[in-house]
Amino acid sequence: MASPVHRRILLIGVAALTATLLLPVAIGAEEKAAAKAGAAASPIFGVSIPEGYRGWHLIAVSHRTDNKDELRAILGNDVAFKAFRENTLPFPDGAMFAKLAWQRVASPTFKGAWVPGVAPRVEFMVKDSRKYSSTGGWGFGRFINGKPADEAQHGTCFPCHDARVKNHDWVFTEFAP
Amino acid sequence: MASPVHRRILLIGVAALTATLLLPVAIGAEEKAAAKAGAAASPIFGVSIPEGYRGWHLIAVSHRTDNKDELRAILGNDVAFKAFRENTLPFPDGAMFAKLAWQRVASPTFKGAWVPGVAPRVEFMVKDSRKYSSTGGWGFGRFINGKPADEAQHGTCFPCHDARVKNHDWVFTEFAP
Repeated sequence: MASPVHRRILLIGVAALTATLLLPVAIGAEEKAAAKAGAAASPIFGVSIPEGYRGWHLIAVSHRTDNKDELRAILGNDVAFKAFRENTLPFPDGAMFAKLAWQRVASPTFKGAWVPGVAPRVEFMVKDSRKYSSTGGWGFGRFINGKPADEAQHGTCFPCHDARVKNHDWVFTEFAP
Repeated sequence: MASPVHRRILLIGVAALTATLLLPVAIGAEEKAAAKAGAAASPIFGVSIPEGYRGWHLIAVSHRTDNKDELRAILGNDVAFKAFRENTLPFPDGAMFAKLAWQRVASPTFKGAWVPGVAPRVEFMVKDSRKYSSTGGWGFGRFINGKPADEAQHGTCFPCHDARVKNHDWVFTEFAP
């Protein structure tokens, strides 16, 4: 039998373990639904929607104005965020990015401000240097309403990254301080 | 003495506790410097730059085009993020938001994309319903290069929020799924 002191330390440990396992603290209904629908993985790469991605850390934002008008946010999991903060390149295995995109719409409460509207898609990059050795170590996944886009679309991911940002470990995003 | 099994559970507990205490995993140099400089708190409200804010969860992004051209990101700590995911209003005490702003500049790697440039300021809202009972329970802090803006600027925070978003607990931002 453990002593009362050991029992108390055990309790603290178990509470801390539980708290750790429960992080991130809140997963939204729409994310759960998306993850469920996304049990179907992306063609070519076999990337699924990672549970809890909406709670990841912000890496940067962006705005696309060429063939669409979208605000975007690029999130990174703990591994990706840490690598960015410590200027680690290439990104280590286990690094994951999520690109959220929304149509840019006028704010209903502040004239001159634009805010997220409909979210047309969500995309992921997953680093696994062995599994994805032929594409810079990155697997790609694009999901529309929680369902993976087709093989033709996924065939365009790597060539575009390879042409433009090969020297940044195939990642467009720079950290926004 | 604890048994070997208890020792192992203890070790797991201590490891989990350590991991919990080390989150968020990485605090950048510029954030540390800002937090240090921000030991000086905001006038009127006494809000300081919260350590680790750059690792908080993304609530939404926005774009200002009236008297500036800025991309923004609104981050929330665990309390604020959870409240948004569970549609809890008003926000509970302890909720904190950070608004990061960057000048919008052309992407060097993708034509038609705009990315964060210089970051002119960072702002915070801190919920403490007793301490800030005369301003909806919210304290405000605006920091430029890590130093709090003047009293005149801080005098404009609450009236603007009060005029436009009083019915959303004085918070402009809506959650972007």
